Amino acid sequence: MNDTFLKACRGEKTDYTPIWIMRQAGRYLPDYQKVRGKVDFLTLCKTPELAAEVTIQPVDILKVDAAILFSDILIPVEAMGVHLEFHEKKGPVLTPARDENVIKKLSVPDPEDKMKFVMDTIRLLRKELAGKAPLIGFSGAPFTTATYMIEGGTSKNFLNTKRMIFQSPELYGSLMDKITATVTEYLKAQIAAGAQAVQLFDTWGGIFSPSDFREYALSYVIRVIADLRKWLKAENISVPIIYFVGETAGLLEEISTSGADVYGIDWRINLDDAVKRLGGNAIVQGNLDPLALFLPQNRMEQRVKDILERASSARGHIFNLGHGVVPETPPENVIALVDMVHRLSKR
Amino acid sequence: MNDTFLKACRGEKTDYTPIWIMRQAGRYLPDYQKVRGKVDFLTLCKTPELAAEVTIQPVDILKVDAAILFSDILIPVEAMGVHLEFHEKKGPVLTPARDENVIKKLSVPDPEDKMKFVMDTIRLLRKELAGKAPLIGFSGAPFTTATYMIEGGTSKNFLNTKRMIFQSPELYGSLMDKITATVTEYLKAQIAAGAQAVQLFDTWGGIFSPSDFREYALSYVIRVIADLRKWLKAENISVPIIYFVGETAGLLEEISTSGADVYGIDWRINLDDAVKRLGGNAIVQGNLDPLALFLPQNRMEQRVKDILERASSARGHIFNLGHGVVPETPPENVIALVDMVHRLSKR
Repeated sequence: MNDTFLKACRGEKTDYTPIWIMRQAGRYLPDYQKVRGKVDFLTLCKTPELAAEVTIQPVDILKVDAAILFSDILIPVEAMGVHLEFHEKKGPVLTPARDENVIKKLSVPDPEDKMKFVMDTIRLLRKELAGKAPLIGFSGAPFTTATYMIEGGTSKNFLNTKRMIFQSPELYGSLMDKITATVTEYLKAQIAAGAQAVQLFDTWGGIFSPSDFREYALSYVIRVIADLRKWLKAENISVPIIYFVGETAGLLEEISTSGADVYGIDWRINLDDAVKRLGGNAIVQGNLDPLALFLPQNRMEQRVKDILERASSARGHIFNLGHGVVPETPPENVIALVDMVHRLSKR
Repeated sequence: MNDTFLKACRGEKTDYTPIWIMRQAGRYLPDYQKVRGKVDFLTLCKTPELAAEVTIQPVDILKVDAAILFSDILIPVEAMGVHLEFHEKKGPVLTPARDENVIKKLSVPDPEDKMKFVMDTIRLLRKELAGKAPLIGFSGAPFTTATYMIEGGTSKNFLNTKRMIFQSPELYGSLMDKITATVTEYLKAQIAAGAQAVQLFDTWGGIFSPSDFREYALSYVIRVIADLRKWLKAENISVPIIYFVGETAGLLEEISTSGADVYGIDWRINLDDAVKRLGGNAIVQGNLDPLALFLPQNRMEQRVKDILERASSARGHIFNLGHGVVPETPPENVIALVDMVHRLSKR
């Protein structure tokens, strides 16, 4: 049983620094492409056998120390009652939820009803992984989830989102209440189905000033995590909670109050600086620039060493990229990275 | 003569905090739209009478304390020999400069030859502004300029740029040498024509880790500024140099070594924190979230007060947004902001 990742999440000593890669199950892997070639993206997410297959691929190919559920952060959005499509070029296209009438009709879904395929995938994965690597579940954090709903997809400057926040804070609050409840129940269901750690992705949290971040993104994450902790305690389950925010450098003091066990850090700040700004006693995950995977191996190795050294000031460290691996990445470089981290961090 | 802006740039006491707005001459202003309706974007940039007209508009309408030359950061790129077009939807489209053959052919243009229209605009503006407000010239910083050249336009993750940097550092260096020389000569020409301050825009500098930022973006800015300082001294001219980087929070310690007089700060970090990270004795420009212009006035006023208070730890402060004003912004809110800053900062 490889429990190095879980140990590091709990701040326990490990023989080496565990590593997994955000978006490790993805388009850069020919094995993934092969499965994906047979079905469209949403069908892949909704077919437990296939979703489990691509979840396990990187564990076998890369030798990473954790598997992360293959799914999409918009699955719970569709379950709330929003029409969702994926276009090859444009990405996700949703019916925008900007008006009271639309938001009023959204539901807080029962995960084992509307998202049963996710829990089935997790149950299947726990069998198939059989201790090879722990399984991470995940959800978009409430704010990042909301941006897709309000914008109707991805966005450049999040004009509609911020306009709603700044001009109709009550409406935004009512949307966020529903999303927060959805995310909380969704994560509980994932854990009940067998997820051994969970990560909240707040990819777009970095578009805020520190005080707006606290008020309009973090406060809802705090609610999710507090609710989860209460439930975990009642159920007597121990599951680390990871909170990842994109572009965190100016927000780390705020982020440190989230109640998470582990903080995902992007590459725009040095890891020792991040640890200091988090209060000095944090467990961190990160933070190699995903495009550093295009470096020649000797120069990639320098960076790995640098990150491992800077991480020594943390209470625990899980190696990862600062954002998802990009589709153009040569898989052999990702394999080399995992090996490097294992080799160079050996204690 | 309104010299409040220039005084603040020099760290001198002012009666109130000066303000100007990035992209203040732009699409949110009906007066701009009227001029722009007559000609395409590049023609507007290249016709001194029209470029001067839209440069002055915000001084008259908003009562800002500085005018900034209306132009585009890709003007020197075209002058270097790159084919440039602007598409209404896609924005700028350039012939990508990724190969040695293409980069070898690029020239370092004589600004008074290939970009004479810019200097003509500046000369005209100094007459027409007649002391109403000082005139800021500008250029893209070398790295941000390079991204457009390498990507052939805007980009999401700057894959081509980082791939060149990480895999062909010498090729990148040879491109950057030419851009750095071009930017330096361009700014000298603007100052010689009458620009009373200059701003270097490193909008995309925030895509780097701190050490990559230093090596691949900042080192070239340091060269531009050192060259400019030597020339300014020889010419016996005093012109403040402003350095703006997008998403600065993790990079401020690096940025503080640029040699600039004033640092443009985005809204993702509190201004007092930014001042501290810059070394405590900095002059700063910023840092309201551009989308805060959608707030009701009483809540916008709270933010203005907060920024003015946090700025009190700086050696000097010029109020600005943390990025350009967006086209959807109601002009009356921008007018209100300028009035608020003047009123609330009155000493």
